[in-house]
This record gives sequence, C-alpha cells and structure tokens, in this order.
Amino acid sequence: MAGTNPMRESVLGGPAIILIEPQLGENIGTCARAMLNCGLTDLRLVRPRDGWPSGSAKAAASGADIVLDNARLCDTTEEAIADLSHVFATTARNRGMIKRIMTPREAAVEMRAQSSAGLSTGVLFGPERTGLFNDDLALADTSLTVPLNPSFSSLNLAQAVLLIGYEWYQTGDVTPGRYLHTGATRPANKEELVNFFDHLEQELSGSGFFSSPEKKPSMIRSIRNCFQRMDLTEQEVRTFHGIVSALTGRKRVYPKE
Amino acid sequence: MAGTNPMRESVLGGPAIILIEPQLGENIGTCARAMLNCGLTDLRLVRPRDGWPSGSAKAAASGADIVLDNARLCDTTEEAIADLSHVFATTARNRGMIKRIMTPREAAVEMRAQSSAGLSTGVLFGPERTGLFNDDLALADTSLTVPLNPSFSSLNLAQAVLLIGYEWYQTGDVTPGRYLHTGATRPANKEELVNFFDHLEQELSGSGFFSSPEKKPSMIRSIRNCFQRMDLTEQEVRTFHGIVSALTGRKRVYPKE
Repeated sequence: MAGTNPMRESVLGGPAIILIEPQLGENIGTCARAMLNCGLTDLRLVRPRDGWPSGSAKAAASGADIVLDNARLCDTTEEAIADLSHVFATTARNRGMIKRIMTPREAAVEMRAQSSAGLSTGVLFGPERTGLFNDDLALADTSLTVPLNPSFSSLNLAQAVLLIGYEWYQTGDVTPGRYLHTGATRPANKEELVNFFDHLEQELSGSGFFSSPEKKPSMIRSIRNCFQRMDLTEQEVRTFHGIVSALTGRKRVYPKE
Repeated sequence: MAGTNPMRESVLGGPAIILIEPQLGENIGTCARAMLNCGLTDLRLVRPRDGWPSGSAKAAASGADIVLDNARLCDTTEEAIADLSHVFATTARNRGMIKRIMTPREAAVEMRAQSSAGLSTGVLFGPERTGLFNDDLALADTSLTVPLNPSFSSLNLAQAVLLIGYEWYQTGDVTPGRYLHTGATRPANKEELVNFFDHLEQELSGSGFFSSPEKKPSMIRSIRNCFQRMDLTEQEVRTFHGIVSALTGRKRVYPKE
C-alpha cells in the first residue's frame, strides 16, 4: 500500500523522520520545529504514548504546524518505513549488532545520493528513555552515531533531529563558507584603495611620520597590508579619506597622481 | 587583566560561549548541556536577567554542572571578550553592517586554526527575544549565519549553541564517516567467502537451480555480488553455511576445493 501510494513528496527529497513510541508530546513538537528548520516535513509517528493529535506538541512546535498537521500515524515500524529504500537508525549505544555505522555528515551524502536517484530515505528515533528497540534496529540499513564528547554525549530528541536535519540541509546549500556582507555599497576597487594610500602616505610624509628614509618603503608596505586586510568598501574608503582630512585639519591638498 | 591572566585553559581550545543578557535560566542550562555535548566548557554570562547562580539553569543542564559552576559573570561584553583574539557574533538578521560572514562550518575551521596558534576565540549570543545589540555586533570580527530553511530559520539558544559546538567538535574528530561495526568477530576473508560460494553453488547445481547452462556463469556472478554487498563477518559466513545445510537437509557433502 505505502509502496504503491508513496507517503511523501519526493521533490522535497529529505529524509522522513520516524519517531517510535515518543513519550512526550512536547518532544514531538520540538522535533517538528527542528525538522522545519532544516526543510524536512515528512514526520511519521509510531504509537505515540499520549495519543495523537497532541496539544502539547503544537505548543512546542513554535509554528511548525505544517509538519504536525501532515504527520502520519502508524501502528508498526514496518508500516512507517514501507516506502523507504534506505533507513537509518539513531542509537547512542551499540547493541552488539553487526551493522554499518555512519556519521550524520556521511549519512547526509548517502541521503542526497538516494534522493538524486529518486529514492526515499528515513531516520528512526526510539523512545526518549530507552532508545530504539533491537527489532527496529534490525529493520535499518545503517546506524547513525553523532561524534560528540564521549563522556557527555546524550542529546534530547529534538537536538538529535536538528543535527541530522542540519547535515542534510548543508548537502544542498550553496551559501559560501565566508563572504563579506557589503549591503548597498560594494567592495572598493584597487584604484580607489591606492588613491587612499597615496592620500595617507603623502600626509604622513608631510607630517614627518617617516623619520627614517630607508625604513619608509617597508613602513608603507606594512600600513598598506593593514588596510588590505580591512576589505574596505567604496563608501568606507571615502570615510577614511575624511578621517585623514579631519586629523590633518585640511582637505586633500596633493593632486591625485 | 584578562589579557595577562587568561580566563580559560587553552589546552581545550574550543570557543568560549558568551551569552549577553540571557533572559531565562532554563536557556542557560540547556546551553551548558549543548556545550558539554561538544566538549566546550568556557561559558561567560553578561548581565543575566534573573541573576546568577540560577536553580532553573542547573535543573535544565541535565548534569552539565561543570559548565555552570565555572561560568564567569561579566558586567560588560568588552570584559567578557577581553582575552579573545577572534570573536564571532551570531545573528539571524543582517543589520546593514559591513561585516565578514561565515557559516558555522567555515568558522569552526577558523576557530581550529586560531586554537592551533595558541589563540582563544569566542561566540556571542544575544538575548532570546532581540538577538545581539548592534554595539556588541561591532565588537565582533565575524558574523555567523547558519544555513537553514530561510522561511523557518529561528533556532532557540541551545540549538544555536549546539550547531556551532557540533561543527567545532567535528574539526577535531577522527571518527571515520562510515565503517562496519563487527563487534567481537571480524570481517570474513575472501577464502572464507569463496568457500561459501562454492558450497552454495554446488548445492544449487545439484538441485537443478541452473536450468540454463549458458546463463549459469552470469547468475553465479549476480549471486556472488549480492553476498559481496553483505560485508559478511567470519561468524556470519558460518551461519550461511548452516542456512544452506538446513535448506538442503544435509551437511556439506561436496569436498572443499
């Protein structure tokens, strides 16, 4: 049934989050929030202890109602995973099972590969107190373990969902690792920057700052390197012209070279 | 003062977590838990609204008492960051400031680089309701933004701390991305595996499974590939010998080749 009538929109492609016998409605809600933070919307609940729907789940979801409203209630784990081609199981303790283990980062690559092939994946989470049942673990392809402080590695349910969802999201994200936010202005070009260097150095020369002629070239290079690291914008270069003018008490008097 | 008498043990090397005017003790506690999950222990609190120490923080820390007990109370952000060489600021909204922006993943690389050079880093978090003050943002080297669902990106304080701490932890973690947990046994070697192939294929030949002689070689290759993907252990190979024997009703009758 589930196999021929897919539960989830494969266009989204992220893993289904499957909570087995979750105890607290509040935890279902915080999981839903963490899911939506990461663009995940396919929540499946197997025998939630306090019934479904849950007012405390809704209160804790902080607006992630779409996830709760579309959550599927299942009687068995087998039913909840029927349409999935690769199932991950989260488990803190190893149960002596012989099983592939992945980090969330590696698993996210696998999820993305499956999604690109048009296949659906899912992640099993056990009850808060006990974790997954061994029989549910044996239904999974791969165990997930999160590399964390080994002497204090216990995460609550929503945090575990967040880390896995976060890794999934990163595999599809194109944000550059670092960039300069320049708002409405733009980075200065080198002509603007060198023009400022000339202004500053001419004022410094005129003021007697370069007391040692032989050291002047290396001092100039040092100061230029400081300003290079600033990554100034065009607007900020003008501000610095103004700073020099204010400190000297005059507008730029030397001609632009 | 702080500069000459470092607040933190540089051996740990992870970033200090600096909460500016945190409102709820509970949030301080869940942040402490998330910190210790990631091996971070240097917590600094600037003007916590409900005073310090806090019973509700301790209750929410789930045992991360070491972080709370060593937390430093500061009057100003300047005091809290005095000994740090690179300060990151977490902010959901861009305030029109011209600032370097990094993802947590890239920032973690920077933190690790600073730590390797013996330098300390820290991450600023603003009050839950408003986020960081603009003047605190201007004290930071770099803004951090977490790539998440742009239409639902709000994280609570502990989750933001967790994602940044998690990325820090990963830069020093050597867990292989994927491996097979084999417990007390070991992966089968190829002699053991080929020996099982022989057993299975001889029984299949004897039972008439290979009805088409010309297809037999390709069928054997297909079956062998299935078992290759199983990554069987030595113990499991013996189990499969037993399975074949049970299905045929006899112990292996063909001699090992």
